[in-house]
Amino acid sequence: MIFGSDNWSGAAPEVSQALLKHSQGLAVAYGDSDLDKSIEKKFNEIFETECAVFFVGTGTAANSLAIAATMKPGGITLCHNEAHIIASEGGGPEFLSGGGRLIPVGGKNAKIDPGSLDEIASEYPKEFNHLGQKTMVSITQATEAGTVYTLEELSLLGEIAQKHEITYHMDGARFANALVSLDCTPAEMTWKRGIDMVSFGATKNGCWCAEALVVFNQDLISHFKFIRKRSGHLFSKTRFISAQFEAYFENDLWLKLARHSNAMGTAIEQTLRNSNHVRPAWPTDSNQVFFIADRQKAEEWLGMGARFHPFPIPKGMESEFSDNEQLYRLVASFITKQENIDELAEVFSS
Amino acid sequence: MIFGSDNWSGAAPEVSQALLKHSQGLAVAYGDSDLDKSIEKKFNEIFETECAVFFVGTGTAANSLAIAATMKPGGITLCHNEAHIIASEGGGPEFLSGGGRLIPVGGKNAKIDPGSLDEIASEYPKEFNHLGQKTMVSITQATEAGTVYTLEELSLLGEIAQKHEITYHMDGARFANALVSLDCTPAEMTWKRGIDMVSFGATKNGCWCAEALVVFNQDLISHFKFIRKRSGHLFSKTRFISAQFEAYFENDLWLKLARHSNAMGTAIEQTLRNSNHVRPAWPTDSNQVFFIADRQKAEEWLGMGARFHPFPIPKGMESEFSDNEQLYRLVASFITKQENIDELAEVFSS
Amino acid sequence: MIFGSDNWSGAAPEVSQALLKHSQGLAVAYGDSDLDKSIEKKFNEIFETECAVFFVGTGTAANSLAIAATMKPGGITLCHNEAHIIASEGGGPEFLSGGGRLIPVGGKNAKIDPGSLDEIASEYPKEFNHLGQKTMVSITQATEAGTVYTLEELSLLGEIAQKHEITYHMDGARFANALVSLDCTPAEMTWKRGIDMVSFGATKNGCWCAEALVVFNQDLISHFKFIRKRSGHLFSKTRFISAQFEAYFENDLWLKLARHSNAMGTAIEQTLRNSNHVRPAWPTDSNQVFFIADRQKAEEWLGMGARFHPFPIPKGMESEFSDNEQLYRLVASFITKQENIDELAEVFSS
Amino acid sequence: MIFGSDNWSGAAPEVSQALLKHSQGLAVAYGDSDLDKSIEKKFNEIFETECAVFFVGTGTAANSLAIAATMKPGGITLCHNEAHIIASEGGGPEFLSGGGRLIPVGGKNAKIDPGSLDEIASEYPKEFNHLGQKTMVSITQATEAGTVYTLEELSLLGEIAQKHEITYHMDGARFANALVSLDCTPAEMTWKRGIDMVSFGATKNGCWCAEALVVFNQDLISHFKFIRKRSGHLFSKTRFISAQFEAYFENDLWLKLARHSNAMGTAIEQTLRNSNHVRPAWPTDSNQVFFIADRQKAEEWLGMGARFHPFPIPKGMESEFSDNEQLYRLVASFITKQENIDELAEVFSS
Repeated sequence: MIFGSDNWSGAAPEVSQALLKHSQGLAVAYGDSDLDKSIEKKFNEIFETECAVFFVGTGTAANSLAIAATMKPGGITLCHNEAHIIASEGGGPEFLSGGGRLIPVGGKNAKIDPGSLDEIASEYPKEFNHLGQKTMVSITQATEAGTVYTLEELSLLGEIAQKHEITYHMDGARFANALVSLDCTPAEMTWKRGIDMVSFGATKNGCWCAEALVVFNQDLISHFKFIRKRSGHLFSKTRFISAQFEAYFENDLWLKLARHSNAMGTAIEQTLRNSNHVRPAWPTDSNQVFFIADRQKAEEWLGMGARFHPFPIPKGMESEFSDNEQLYRLVASFITKQENIDELAEVFSS
Repeated sequence: MIFGSDNWSGAAPEVSQALLKHSQGLAVAYGDSDLDKSIEKKFNEIFETECAVFFVGTGTAANSLAIAATMKPGGITLCHNEAHIIASEGGGPEFLSGGGRLIPVGGKNAKIDPGSLDEIASEYPKEFNHLGQKTMVSITQATEAGTVYTLEELSLLGEIAQKHEITYHMDGARFANALVSLDCTPAEMTWKRGIDMVSFGATKNGCWCAEALVVFNQDLISHFKFIRKRSGHLFSKTRFISAQFEAYFENDLWLKLARHSNAMGTAIEQTLRNSNHVRPAWPTDSNQVFFIADRQKAEEWLGMGARFHPFPIPKGMESEFSDNEQLYRLVASFITKQENIDELAEVFSS
Repeated sequence: MIFGSDNWSGAAPEVSQALLKHSQGLAVAYGDSDLDKSIEKKFNEIFETECAVFFVGTGTAANSLAIAATMKPGGITLCHNEAHIIASEGGGPEFLSGGGRLIPVGGKNAKIDPGSLDEIASEYPKEFNHLGQKTMVSITQATEAGTVYTLEELSLLGEIAQKHEITYHMDGARFANALVSLDCTPAEMTWKRGIDMVSFGATKNGCWCAEALVVFNQDLISHFKFIRKRSGHLFSKTRFISAQFEAYFENDLWLKLARHSNAMGTAIEQTLRNSNHVRPAWPTDSNQVFFIADRQKAEEWLGMGARFHPFPIPKGMESEFSDNEQLYRLVASFITKQENIDELAEVFSS
Repeated sequence: MIFGSDNWSGAAPEVSQALLKHSQGLAVAYGDSDLDKSIEKKFNEIFETECAVFFVGTGTAANSLAIAATMKPGGITLCHNEAHIIASEGGGPEFLSGGGRLIPVGGKNAKIDPGSLDEIASEYPKEFNHLGQKTMVSITQATEAGTVYTLEELSLLGEIAQKHEITYHMDGARFANALVSLDCTPAEMTWKRGIDMVSFGATKNGCWCAEALVVFNQDLISHFKFIRKRSGHLFSKTRFISAQFEAYFENDLWLKLARHSNAMGTAIEQTLRNSNHVRPAWPTDSNQVFFIADRQKAEEWLGMGARFHPFPIPKGMESEFSDNEQLYRLVASFITKQENIDELAEVFSS
């Protein structure tokens, strides 16, 4: 009954086997081994276009360094006010970009509202140094609320980014979950929508620590190697990341794992709908499910062994909560089993 | 015949097996799992004292964040002019410490000369803001030149650090190699010599990516969790680092691996002494061996399949080289075999 | 009819005369001249307590360096969402504090709402590195909306700051205007309310460039000299700032100038109330006056030679504006004359 | 007998008169006033070419922001090991450039040796992220040792900068002193020698605080306005800097003042040559004079009221000093009088 987060899971056995397999022998360090090169090529195939690929070890690093790579003096990154980069990365993007700022934009269900984006971007005219200069809009796909931007929504935001001449970045910490939810190709969900760079996360979906910054617009990253190195994010034995990705992509393991965790998300949501004591906060599109419940009831369930966390109520939703109610999050992962959910259902019916 | 670097090796099989073993099940993320806690405790046992332990993924991160943790405005870290932190980390310490500076100190064989340290530290009086304020001295053990500070040398530098009221940091990227070379305990090589914090490296000696900042003087690190997080160096699934350390310490694997690579270092040095074409640049104490050879000869050997790199000639040694000569480095690792050295000997005799 | 800003004025003649008077002879540089020391002492007298005084040349520097001095890793400064530091300093506080963040707090008329401050401060528990750590609350007195915090309001915010163990900073770019508005002493408006540090601005009220960071809680600034130096804000000939302050304080020039500009603010507000075409947006307490007018009308007036600027509509006030209406700002300064306002009245009646 | 530094002087009366003259009336703030524009134009005339001009208040700001403007990730600025930017700015260039590094280059009399520059620049190949990337060479004219680069020397360094594709910056804290020493035009001493940007200092030569970054290669500074603003170095009432420059340039005041202080420098040097107790350390070309004397003697003279400071002995000159000897600096300024030197001569003969 542990639904705390998808990063509470370990790694898929295939991933650890790949690490064992590639542990022997000598190979060039710092990203230049044959295995590294072959995985970079694999990313190009998967995205059906030429793209630069940079391995890092954490999502905070991938996101922050993406922001750093496109930062300008006094620069501003626009993102949803519930975005992980502004809410949960301890100031990483600001620090690693040398003092850049994040400006929040509103929108329902953790999706940036296109009108709001356009309006706020318009508040920063070029060359007006008192306000700073806008440089990027970053979205999260799947979002922090478990929802998924449709392809149309992605395109619309891309057009606004282009109009304002800012970089369009996707935080793909749960890229695979969004992809199988939309049932489209990686290309269709990214550069065909105008996306310039993706933080491609594999850690939450079955790897130990495997993240890649994938860049379609290569003008953006001429100095990226130096940016990664000076922030301590260049691993010497990079093949240990490549090995994880090798297993991740082999036989579509990544899509299978994501389909499973999404299906578990749907099963959890169904459980919530069947309960008299809780209600879903909004429909989920992926592996994260949010529900509203009485605080005292939730405490009881936690006492019975269920593991989940309260979550900040999004701006504008306060009125949907009574005084005793709180928002909670349940996260399924690639190792969640139906029986875990059955147990949860039992608890929630008490 | 590959002697490029000890980070060209992969991981000891025991390490990958530990990753496989711990890949299953759910555990609290971000360093609070039972395994994480048990490994922190293990570090306390190994160092025979209470110490704080912070896992990171690269040596650059461990060193730079140690410097960041003790940085003050206008702050200065003193280190040998061949130290990795000043010579080979792409400005990581400066960037991650928010603009701190590194000031080089001289000394033979990559060891800081105590007199020079005292002299340069004295050039920065307290409260004189035009020069900045000294905050730390960092040494590397084993050094970048393959040498190892004796316990007496370590104590002497510690006294100077204490006199100047600065932190005493050890870059232990090759900690185990130094330890088995001195044949002493971790405590004897560190806090008993006045060391305040150690960048404890395991990557070069058989792990994939396992580094820990070990801090004896806990006043220094009240904000360290925030420093690590905001620089993107907090892993979610930290148990993948803990698992590596578990295997690393079990049955003294780390000492065995280090003894092996040091022995291979000694064997390489012997080979050099037997050759008519090369001479050792200075005696080695660990797994790194430096030699002087004719540039053209070296090119021939590289053409025959040997892999090694030229190295910058240390300041003050220029006169020991003739015009055609160059300095080169050979590094043994935990998987180097005697037969590799025999092959090298053959090449060097040609 | 120029009401663009109070920094469009030059300097009071007394200030320039003082510069002429002190231009001769030799004096120790970098803040250690007799004149510098005497002005520091003068600040201690004016504030009726022991305080440290640091001269800088801009308000952005005073505010940003105050924030830098109290910054911690992952640190957060809370301020009103219309505060100059978050809205108009081009990212200065973030950059000069090494990547610190500013988190906006709401409240009517540019004053922080105590309940909101308490609530948002509570969202950042100690030691939770994913969110960062709160370090300071900064208020502006007089505010960016021309209003002035009452002594009771200042005390209440001070209690909340103390409860959350954060520094309490006052951006006093218009300190004198607030002081004469409240008709109290500097001590009563600052440390007696719990204020730890003040950015004491004199530039807008009759100096060329004279700002001072005044610090009551001296624990906060042990490294401040280094912070100022490394950001390029230590002048060599600091007596040119001291000379300005000498004239500023002599014969209560500063209070006279502020009383004048406040009176002109009141006169402007009266003019607005008499007009059929505009209405005050809210009552002013100082020298800044905000009004609502039809956009087309405003354009006509600008065409007739009036100089004033549109201003962003504060959050929550949007409904008070019709589609054609806009918010505008008028600022009086120490050299504004009644006849300028009479001309403006004429224009506004057209 | 005060020869501590040229920044111990105040301002030329003409400069303070200009401040008085321009103190009245209203003018657009933040650099857009008519006076500001006219002074920018004046700079273009003086340098006989199109150049961008940015006012700041300190030399540390001018130098550090020049470095920041051309900084790249992992970037390196090469400068003489006695350069003010590396020796005396408290880490300003490193901090304000976001963690950039300064690498020292040797050379006699504080002038960069061309061969050493070429050699060190060659040690940083492009795209090698472990070392970082070279971005700029900065020279000081007149140098910190009172010497002046010849036009030929300036050209030669410019060619090396061009070869290595790095920016060529001149720290002109004592620009006027060098100019009158060489008896050439500003154009001849700068862009005609390949200089890309100059920190044009007027503070030491008769202004209160007037420095300008003058940029010939305008590609370098597309974001400079944002860089200046975010570091707190944009003054609101910029005309107070312009007013100083107006007086500085009028009737060639700047050249007259510099000729005077250089002449005083020569007179001091002559005094030293006539003394039995001291000897000049090297010939001076400007207003700074360095001498070698017995430490005890110097203490006596200081006790008799002379004011001067000891100075670090340049690398490589140690052997020219006996055990009891020390290096000292005497600086003449625009208000130094022959009678001050006569008094000094008297003291030195005792």
